[in-house]
Amino acid sequence: MSKTIPTIAIIGLGYWGPNLLRNFAGLDECHVKYGCDKNKERLLRFQKQYPSVTFTTNADDIWNDPEVDGVVIATPTSAHFELAKAALKAGKHVLVEKPMTATSKEGKVLVDLAKKQKKHLLVDHTFAYTSSVFKINDLIKDHALGKLLYFDSTRINLGIIQKDTNVIWDLAVHDLSILNSFVDFADITEIFAHGSAHYGKHIEIGHLHLKFKTGFYAHIHVSWLSPVKIRHTILGGTKAMVLFDDTEPSEKIRVYDKGIDHDDTKPDPFFPKYRSGDVLIPALDSTEALLREARHFVACISGKEKPIVPGELGRQMVRILELSDESLKKNAPIKIKSL
Amino acid sequence: MSKTIPTIAIIGLGYWGPNLLRNFAGLDECHVKYGCDKNKERLLRFQKQYPSVTFTTNADDIWNDPEVDGVVIATPTSAHFELAKAALKAGKHVLVEKPMTATSKEGKVLVDLAKKQKKHLLVDHTFAYTSSVFKINDLIKDHALGKLLYFDSTRINLGIIQKDTNVIWDLAVHDLSILNSFVDFADITEIFAHGSAHYGKHIEIGHLHLKFKTGFYAHIHVSWLSPVKIRHTILGGTKAMVLFDDTEPSEKIRVYDKGIDHDDTKPDPFFPKYRSGDVLIPALDSTEALLREARHFVACISGKEKPIVPGELGRQMVRILELSDESLKKNAPIKIKSL
Amino acid sequence: MSKTIPTIAIIGLGYWGPNLLRNFAGLDECHVKYGCDKNKERLLRFQKQYPSVTFTTNADDIWNDPEVDGVVIATPTSAHFELAKAALKAGKHVLVEKPMTATSKEGKVLVDLAKKQKKHLLVDHTFAYTSSVFKINDLIKDHALGKLLYFDSTRINLGIIQKDTNVIWDLAVHDLSILNSFVDFADITEIFAHGSAHYGKHIEIGHLHLKFKTGFYAHIHVSWLSPVKIRHTILGGTKAMVLFDDTEPSEKIRVYDKGIDHDDTKPDPFFPKYRSGDVLIPALDSTEALLREARHFVACISGKEKPIVPGELGRQMVRILELSDESLKKNAPIKIKSL
Amino acid sequence: MSKTIPTIAIIGLGYWGPNLLRNFAGLDECHVKYGCDKNKERLLRFQKQYPSVTFTTNADDIWNDPEVDGVVIATPTSAHFELAKAALKAGKHVLVEKPMTATSKEGKVLVDLAKKQKKHLLVDHTFAYTSSVFKINDLIKDHALGKLLYFDSTRINLGIIQKDTNVIWDLAVHDLSILNSFVDFADITEIFAHGSAHYGKHIEIGHLHLKFKTGFYAHIHVSWLSPVKIRHTILGGTKAMVLFDDTEPSEKIRVYDKGIDHDDTKPDPFFPKYRSGDVLIPALDSTEALLREARHFVACISGKEKPIVPGELGRQMVRILELSDESLKKNAPIKIKSL
Repeated sequence: MSKTIPTIAIIGLGYWGPNLLRNFAGLDECHVKYGCDKNKERLLRFQKQYPSVTFTTNADDIWNDPEVDGVVIATPTSAHFELAKAALKAGKHVLVEKPMTATSKEGKVLVDLAKKQKKHLLVDHTFAYTSSVFKINDLIKDHALGKLLYFDSTRINLGIIQKDTNVIWDLAVHDLSILNSFVDFADITEIFAHGSAHYGKHIEIGHLHLKFKTGFYAHIHVSWLSPVKIRHTILGGTKAMVLFDDTEPSEKIRVYDKGIDHDDTKPDPFFPKYRSGDVLIPALDSTEALLREARHFVACISGKEKPIVPGELGRQMVRILELSDESLKKNAPIKIKSL
Repeated sequence: MSKTIPTIAIIGLGYWGPNLLRNFAGLDECHVKYGCDKNKERLLRFQKQYPSVTFTTNADDIWNDPEVDGVVIATPTSAHFELAKAALKAGKHVLVEKPMTATSKEGKVLVDLAKKQKKHLLVDHTFAYTSSVFKINDLIKDHALGKLLYFDSTRINLGIIQKDTNVIWDLAVHDLSILNSFVDFADITEIFAHGSAHYGKHIEIGHLHLKFKTGFYAHIHVSWLSPVKIRHTILGGTKAMVLFDDTEPSEKIRVYDKGIDHDDTKPDPFFPKYRSGDVLIPALDSTEALLREARHFVACISGKEKPIVPGELGRQMVRILELSDESLKKNAPIKIKSL
Repeated sequence: MSKTIPTIAIIGLGYWGPNLLRNFAGLDECHVKYGCDKNKERLLRFQKQYPSVTFTTNADDIWNDPEVDGVVIATPTSAHFELAKAALKAGKHVLVEKPMTATSKEGKVLVDLAKKQKKHLLVDHTFAYTSSVFKINDLIKDHALGKLLYFDSTRINLGIIQKDTNVIWDLAVHDLSILNSFVDFADITEIFAHGSAHYGKHIEIGHLHLKFKTGFYAHIHVSWLSPVKIRHTILGGTKAMVLFDDTEPSEKIRVYDKGIDHDDTKPDPFFPKYRSGDVLIPALDSTEALLREARHFVACISGKEKPIVPGELGRQMVRILELSDESLKKNAPIKIKSL
Repeated sequence: MSKTIPTIAIIGLGYWGPNLLRNFAGLDECHVKYGCDKNKERLLRFQKQYPSVTFTTNADDIWNDPEVDGVVIATPTSAHFELAKAALKAGKHVLVEKPMTATSKEGKVLVDLAKKQKKHLLVDHTFAYTSSVFKINDLIKDHALGKLLYFDSTRINLGIIQKDTNVIWDLAVHDLSILNSFVDFADITEIFAHGSAHYGKHIEIGHLHLKFKTGFYAHIHVSWLSPVKIRHTILGGTKAMVLFDDTEPSEKIRVYDKGIDHDDTKPDPFFPKYRSGDVLIPALDSTEALLREARHFVACISGKEKPIVPGELGRQMVRILELSDESLKKNAPIKIKSL
């Protein structure tokens, strides 16, 4: 009977893990059997809230339990690789926090291992599961935006300056996981990162420019030093353009019937005609992204869905961040043949 | 008696010239004697509106009239150099539309000539005369912003795609003339331009990154392909940060008491303490920028004021635009020793 | 030949008249023959700008000229009645500034006279000619809003305190002319006005509540004492609701697919189901309201259109303002059988 | 030892009670001994979360325990009176949810009883404890606003239509508790309520107009039928005006140096001079209102603070709501000598 629905274990209950635990525990379509963390006090606290879950400091309990189908890893990044590897080797499906691994090489190892083990490896790019991104994807699939031209994303605020990483690793990952929902990272031909450090050693204001072989152009601007909080993402297409403003409580998406058409009555090879029509603010499904993601992981385990953010995307993301570091170091654009 | 107030001539009455004519004609402290344009019909029209002004198609009338003290040039850019040169040679003070010249070499010739002739050469960087920029300059002079750290400016809209120039030449000039009011272009050490073209041959989305030897960092983002009109300029300092939003009808400037201080109670060389205080929206003088600029030119002629935007700034601006073209061509940052 | 297009005369060239003159003079479909005002200097100034128009201080020139088809009256309110009466008696069509007359009795006289003379009497309720109001009317005609439920309008700012009138006469006229485009004033059953005076003798903050026999409810809030400028008009219907925000530069109208439906699956006589769908911001025709109105007056003269705002509406508006004064005086709602 | 800090009991753990429980339980300066509710399942749930609290269905346990100093009542309104009366009789201090009682007569009984028992009776007008209202009160005390002139509050949204009460009882209580923080309800001379019902029996759109003997004027607009959520409260004074926008995540208060002064250079008894200066957005203390209120109740019990919202205010609030019902019924303003 226990096997009618998948069994889940969650490792890492610090900052983000409790949110994952809460969402998986709330699902009818799975059973959370284990919670795991090195901190014993923390485990005691959760034990009270989730009396039916087994809390342990020893991950081996999970690897050794054949009942466990899926493992969710939300530890610090440095531990992702070894835990995910162990989980896959033990024949478990894996959902791992972002960034998937500390290096893209480790990412490659995990992707290959998952393939070999015929298990799913998913990455928690939460934005990919938001109603906003789902809605924009619907528009793309319905050809409502036409050919995609550019992506421009601004994510700035007065933010906590990280001592061990730069603002691109901290913030641009969110924009990249949005971007990745719309275009294929495999098409990237050039990466350029630029920025400035004013208080610490790593850049606190950052810009990431990506060129694609399709002509698509992406720019991401992130900052820890802005007096205002802005989260503006524009996706421009030939037929319509979308503004995603994540600071809006409900009207997050605006679809503009705006753009430039060729005036066919003119002999000129390109005689622009400017179009400025209605704006639509679509109603969005109120499902929480993390709940949708938890359901999706369970559905992948059950064979009902295919991973939206498979391990390969997680690896590509890490690779882009590595290349942005390389670009910053060389102060030059990096041309790439493949990620 | 005619010489108690300066006498002005205006050349070029197409798009922007009529605004200059209107403002100078409205001043009590000068006398507009000539209006000049190649288009005769246009002149007839203005003659009715300004019966006391002499309208002519021949600029020589102006050079040869010893009564004329100052010449305002608002023709297409290609004609700026020859007209400004002739005016300076005829011993007139000059206010010329931006960009000052088509090349920085021509700019250098004008700057040197003005010096030799001991005449003022001013450039119409209109933003430098706005109440918003004046107010920010007051804050800087009062040390209210602390040490300046960065400038970040976004000027995007669905704009007319120019066939003969790129979006940086078209739009970033405005941001540069704002930036130039706060920091010294002579401190620039590196220029990098990036962007993409989707409809024509020249970039339609552009980014300009400037590094300064003081550690100051500037980024300007311009676009003709945005569905939304944004004109956001942030100037970040160690003591306060300013947001200048030119789309606001009256509340254009917001001063944020926000930033990062060192927590002196901590032994660490840098232990950040985040400050988030009041926001002030200062009332702004309602004087039109162009009126202020007209008055300023007249006051410079009368020896009462010193040029806010002298020819050398105009030359530097053109040089930056040239270097941005070079950077785009090389797809690499351009290091510079001097502009 | 002169009679192929209507001939127009404009009386009153103070504050608003010049706008009317500019718009009528710009039309190909009419000919402006006269401009009339008591102020001779003013006339001289306009003569220069409009050399082909005859400017006069004597309105008799207009009454006596059989070529004149339509007269536009933009004098102070106190003069409207006598001028409009004279114009109608002289067989001219009339467009008169709002409020149409100082009293509703005078309004009645004009309406009857126009009928007798078989001439059009139109009132310049400018808002009725805006693209925003036109768009909302299209939605109403297309049954997109369902049954209309309520109108709620806020028009507040730091405004000039009028010495001889209250804020309802000064500002609520605009909201009433918007309201009147959507519902029939003849259905009003009760008028209640309320407010307060803090500096002068007449109320400076005002509220006007109107009940209709259809169940429709209207509230208008006007103020000269607000620190913020708000121009929010909501029109609520059973199928959709519209927000008209006149301070927005282009996105003036928002159509909300929001409301309350009856849940038919429930036995209860009314079990509410809340609907919260998309928001649409329709693109608006950029035609200036006054230009549209000028064209409309000419088209009415030519027999091509029927008056959108006939004299009877102007009379009703004045009557509502009179009744609001009566309500203020009695500090009680005024029940009415007919306006 | 148990008596070094006050002991608290909380009755009613349905909708709002859990928030009170959480805040009181989190305080170091009090000890929560009892939680009480009729629903046993609910109590079991809370027992797990708060193992040190005694949960009971019998309020007598609380009345009979001499250790209990203060009782917090968050049951449905109909039960407030009997519970508060019992608590006061048992010698406990009381904090009761709003509205304090179902009728103002009951309110009077409680106020008198508290006085007799020498116990504090406080009402949970939560808005009175927000940082926004505290900040505005600071401005008033610092004479920054000058003489207060008017209060204008809009609280509209698509809201749940209540079957047993009208929108004024449901929503205007919030605006009244804000208003009451600034002016004295004892000065009210006239109450007028107006509105309309479109779906149910009770008004769904409501307006409440209050006149004060000081000349102060208050208007509150509430609605369940608005397509947009607006929470705008303006407090106008002779020296400055404040806008409180509760939908803003952090910039909730704007202080406008705007208003009308007398131009002393003019002989006229009132010659207005319009002032439009800076706008200040003060930083606000981030303390949660309910936490501040919990602390305040404990401090009142300990004799360290005086009630900010004593029972008499709660009674006045209920009386105003009763009078608004009377005004609606009579469709006329109600003049009052005392509340």
